[in-house]
Amino acid sequence: MELKDLGEFGLIRRLLAGQTRAAGVIVPPGDDAAVLEVTAGQRVVLTCDCMVEDVHFLAKAQGYDVGYKLLASNISDIAAMGGVPRYAVVTLVAHVATSVAWLDDLYAGLRACALEYGVAIVGGDTSRGEKIMLSVALLGEVTPGRELLRSSAQPGDLVCVTGPLGGSAAGLEIVLGHAHPPEHFAREALACHYRPRPQVAAGLLMASLGARCANDISDGLASEAHEVALASAVAIEIDSEKVPQTEATLFIARAVGKDPLDFAFYGGEDYELLFTVPEQAWPAVQAALPAACAVGLVRAGHGVFVRRGESLLPLARGYTHFR
Amino acid sequence: MELKDLGEFGLIRRLLAGQTRAAGVIVPPGDDAAVLEVTAGQRVVLTCDCMVEDVHFLAKAQGYDVGYKLLASNISDIAAMGGVPRYAVVTLVAHVATSVAWLDDLYAGLRACALEYGVAIVGGDTSRGEKIMLSVALLGEVTPGRELLRSSAQPGDLVCVTGPLGGSAAGLEIVLGHAHPPEHFAREALACHYRPRPQVAAGLLMASLGARCANDISDGLASEAHEVALASAVAIEIDSEKVPQTEATLFIARAVGKDPLDFAFYGGEDYELLFTVPEQAWPAVQAALPAACAVGLVRAGHGVFVRRGESLLPLARGYTHFR
Repeated sequence: MELKDLGEFGLIRRLLAGQTRAAGVIVPPGDDAAVLEVTAGQRVVLTCDCMVEDVHFLAKAQGYDVGYKLLASNISDIAAMGGVPRYAVVTLVAHVATSVAWLDDLYAGLRACALEYGVAIVGGDTSRGEKIMLSVALLGEVTPGRELLRSSAQPGDLVCVTGPLGGSAAGLEIVLGHAHPPEHFAREALACHYRPRPQVAAGLLMASLGARCANDISDGLASEAHEVALASAVAIEIDSEKVPQTEATLFIARAVGKDPLDFAFYGGEDYELLFTVPEQAWPAVQAALPAACAVGLVRAGHGVFVRRGESLLPLARGYTHFR
Repeated sequence: MELKDLGEFGLIRRLLAGQTRAAGVIVPPGDDAAVLEVTAGQRVVLTCDCMVEDVHFLAKAQGYDVGYKLLASNISDIAAMGGVPRYAVVTLVAHVATSVAWLDDLYAGLRACALEYGVAIVGGDTSRGEKIMLSVALLGEVTPGRELLRSSAQPGDLVCVTGPLGGSAAGLEIVLGHAHPPEHFAREALACHYRPRPQVAAGLLMASLGARCANDISDGLASEAHEVALASAVAIEIDSEKVPQTEATLFIARAVGKDPLDFAFYGGEDYELLFTVPEQAWPAVQAALPAACAVGLVRAGHGVFVRRGESLLPLARGYTHFR
């Protein structure tokens, strides 16, 4: 069955079927807009993130994977603010020949991620178009004073990450058919690529323990470090030997003749958090987040530098759209 | 200058340039997400609406007009809930050869509409893609108990609209080169088409005066009436002679050999409100909203019917995407 056989209202009915009413949803999907409760005393966090066919995913990608990652990438932005994700609206542009099974699968992935992170999908808009284009806007809540800002890094802070980097890029090498690692490495790298784990709990914990600055790693550690350095008007120095990477990532990078660090710096889509924390707060953060690693230092100055052995080199920023 | 000359970060800097910090915006654009204050005791209203090149507008359309209408269509959804619009995030997909002047113009239109209705644009996402695709998610506030729901129409209620219908469709006939009316009619119809006036104040007023049901007229009166009838499990009867239309709309419809009522029923994009109100509340609503007209009656039953002279006919629903 193709989308043109179902029509717009048929599609919407199908997407809404079997949804249960989540806590806080006063008016569910089906009206001009959703009406929602926000917890008294909390501030609202609002973000949006899109995925476009042939840019972020190929037409042959599994709908489930696309849907899961689309919502996960938005949740990651809320996590990076120290917030809790709550309500999402979804814009879906599809062509008339899009398979309804693919769209069902897409929404199954969206719903699975929503369920896992306690997000209610409360509305959306649909249109036809030549390529599939998806955008999610996500509303979360944050406790006043506990926001994690890009602009809050202070000279002397440790630069940390919540977990290993480059796994998504390693998984992509398998997807593209460039790497054929042993089964256990393949499974791990593909999980990183298809099922990123937004660090909501880590964001809340670090904010409660004194961290004030975080960025989610969607475009690679290099790009995120540049954003923090620029927004905070500081320099960031990263020690390449301290960047955590799994055995699977190291194996796959070497198998395709690439530097594993390039996966961490420029691969992106790991959805771990880059954060900074005053040195005296680090032991408590480390105890609460055992997978977290200190990878560098915030200094007065500007720019991002990487230490490799005895050398200190400026770190290039990396990928941008439109160029 | 084309988008590829500017790059993603250049574009974002350009779009954010000169923005002033609006009330309630704790963390402005430039972080992972915006942090916002919601008024204590209010509920949140959340909606999204998209526009796609070659579906909702042509590549040759003025960016300003596209931007203005995109935000206006979202504001209209908040108005139709009895809410006040506050914060927007914008997803922009464009191709590398998109003219930067066109995008500047698009954002000028977005900002003009935002300023007029007190909306702060607090974030967004950009990606490349083959066609231009825009989506806005808009967060508003509504007073608990004052929500205007599709499902609240009651048999015996009057069916009303906030103002004249079919003007946007009349304007489209001029844009398409089908109609060449006198200057004053042309100006009026083009204003309806390019500068719709979301009925925020009308929504608040009617909610305070006892209306409980509204829908914004984005797809034409027929489609909106069907949505209300279905959601409220009632029948709606519309008296064709009472549907308000301007002289300009009547002139243009006749000039192109079409029935002016078809513009009202199926033209869409008028962004007036269809609402229902108990008969005893109508005089006060009419006094507060002089442009509003009672056009029909809610009855027990189901379906939408139109009275034309002595005939009562079922009213077809109209346009949907994907078919």
